[in-house]
Amino acid sequence: MPIATRAFAATAADAPLSPYSFDRRDPGPDDVAIEIKFCGVCHSDLHVAKNDLGSTRYPIVPGHEIAGVVTAVGANVTRFREGDRVGVGCMVDSCRTCPACLEGEEQYCVPGMTQTYGSPDPKGAEAGQKVTQGGYSDRITVDQNYVLSIPDSIPLDAAAPLLCAGITTYSPLRQWGVGPGSKVAVIGLGGLGHMAVKLANAMGAEVTVLSTSDRKKADAERMGAKHFLINSDAAAMRAAGEKFDLIINTVSATHEIASHVNLLARDGTMVMLGLTTEGLPVYAMPLLWRRRRIAGSLIGGIRETQEMLDFCAEHGLACDIEVIAPDQINEAYARMERSDVRYRFVIDMSRFDKAA
Amino acid sequence: MPIATRAFAATAADAPLSPYSFDRRDPGPDDVAIEIKFCGVCHSDLHVAKNDLGSTRYPIVPGHEIAGVVTAVGANVTRFREGDRVGVGCMVDSCRTCPACLEGEEQYCVPGMTQTYGSPDPKGAEAGQKVTQGGYSDRITVDQNYVLSIPDSIPLDAAAPLLCAGITTYSPLRQWGVGPGSKVAVIGLGGLGHMAVKLANAMGAEVTVLSTSDRKKADAERMGAKHFLINSDAAAMRAAGEKFDLIINTVSATHEIASHVNLLARDGTMVMLGLTTEGLPVYAMPLLWRRRRIAGSLIGGIRETQEMLDFCAEHGLACDIEVIAPDQINEAYARMERSDVRYRFVIDMSRFDKAA
Repeated sequence: MPIATRAFAATAADAPLSPYSFDRRDPGPDDVAIEIKFCGVCHSDLHVAKNDLGSTRYPIVPGHEIAGVVTAVGANVTRFREGDRVGVGCMVDSCRTCPACLEGEEQYCVPGMTQTYGSPDPKGAEAGQKVTQGGYSDRITVDQNYVLSIPDSIPLDAAAPLLCAGITTYSPLRQWGVGPGSKVAVIGLGGLGHMAVKLANAMGAEVTVLSTSDRKKADAERMGAKHFLINSDAAAMRAAGEKFDLIINTVSATHEIASHVNLLARDGTMVMLGLTTEGLPVYAMPLLWRRRRIAGSLIGGIRETQEMLDFCAEHGLACDIEVIAPDQINEAYARMERSDVRYRFVIDMSRFDKAA
Repeated sequence: MPIATRAFAATAADAPLSPYSFDRRDPGPDDVAIEIKFCGVCHSDLHVAKNDLGSTRYPIVPGHEIAGVVTAVGANVTRFREGDRVGVGCMVDSCRTCPACLEGEEQYCVPGMTQTYGSPDPKGAEAGQKVTQGGYSDRITVDQNYVLSIPDSIPLDAAAPLLCAGITTYSPLRQWGVGPGSKVAVIGLGGLGHMAVKLANAMGAEVTVLSTSDRKKADAERMGAKHFLINSDAAAMRAAGEKFDLIINTVSATHEIASHVNLLARDGTMVMLGLTTEGLPVYAMPLLWRRRRIAGSLIGGIRETQEMLDFCAEHGLACDIEVIAPDQINEAYARMERSDVRYRFVIDMSRFDKAA
């Protein structure tokens, strides 16, 4: 019997999110049924709710930073049982047979991963769902292979954003070999940026935060940053030239990257994480002259996400969050658009009753 | 006693190159005196002669693809002796103490390498030279540590362009791990591109050439390319999507790179080698979606240059050249500007008498 689910959904690009009820599928043999306790609010949610990428199908329930508790498992499920603390990130399925999936990099699935919300839902027919719906809701049913274990030491609310902001920054730090002595810069101290600082610091790197003002300087230092650089300060930027092995660029709006490329050391890499849509001018000379690189990175695979959660538990890391009720989501979006959040909104589903 | 040297020099951005005489320094204890037999004509020469980068000091003798024979050596020189077949590439000195120099990546010398032409000449005072002068000349004196051995099996004329075009393409192929089974694309079949095809093929890669027309298709196949793609053919470009592990981009004019990025496989890299000066719009999405990279690369270190020459000898590779007399240089520049050369002009210094 399908699972009645309460949610907040966007119904049009220019409409506020509003209460929405729908059915989730009953767990199949390989499924885990989850009661969602908390869901982080990612900038991508806002892009999709407002149809910034032009492909949104309404109504859509955003949310891919899900933390909750298992309520039931299918007959084949061996990895989880009722009561387990679990997480779901940006994907709930993938083809499992392409080279990317076989290598545990399901986020790069060749036919395409099934995203947690907004993808065609291959298993939704029973519950009448054509499109996957995300975590601004109190229930979800997910194949066990796409469910993560949240270590006991991490509170569920502060764990939720690790499922996107955490893995999105952890993966490139690992990919590009950050370790003791690495010099890492983080552009933008937001949801992604603040986790990049904590993770890079825990890996032993010397971390610098680049921001447009010094408003967040004390926070950055508390999170482990050794240096803070205002990127409109031309003299300071010149002085930091050729310093960094890796720059984690979390900015998700069109921005100037050329001057930041000059901050890279020889063989240094700037990793782009933000979903900017316009072309960003890149100059060949600064790339040639120091064999620099500009790269992209997209979340991380399931195995690596579990590794990230375990790393956070081992190092006592979690997200800095501001907990809201479901009916505060529109206000949260407005505040996110002016970067007024330290550092991630997380929806508390126990406060649903007041809203529905 | 300084060495009287005949050359062709640019004297102004808008003047043709013309005969020019000057003195080279007598070999010091660590120097090798070389009679230049051949010098390749690189697109960078043209940029500098015409002051495209805005920093040219006239008169300037271009040329950094030098092949010749040793005529004398200094007292400390152990690696070369009179009569040896030698080459000089894009640099004649560097600081030797910075991390790049210590790692054998002298091209990335932190205070800056001494380029073969156009750099302040730290050893030029004796001969009255303030600026280094290049290989469109019949004599040069170079520190032994920046001189390469040209294997006997490679003719000097066809070896000359290896000192820039060869190493500039060899280095990124090695850097990015090309080997048997690698899928490599080469954009632009010119001086650099044709060597990229030969080298990648010899390393065991499956090579595709991308060009604006099929004029050079037969040549590309003769050099070892398995596939040929016209980059204005949208359907063919779509069909080649996500195919290549490495794209060697040799284009040295402003060009559209975004559609080429989509040709990269997951974790694939486009290496920019051309000295373009304008910003090239890059989009974040295609980088994120397959963890792709855009990188630069600048020639190669001295040790790697020798490795490249030995690799070419082992595999029977050299440049496809068109030999010209010194006084044909202006005509050659005009033809290069319309891509009318297969695939590198090489100046034969034995034909100097007719010009001087």
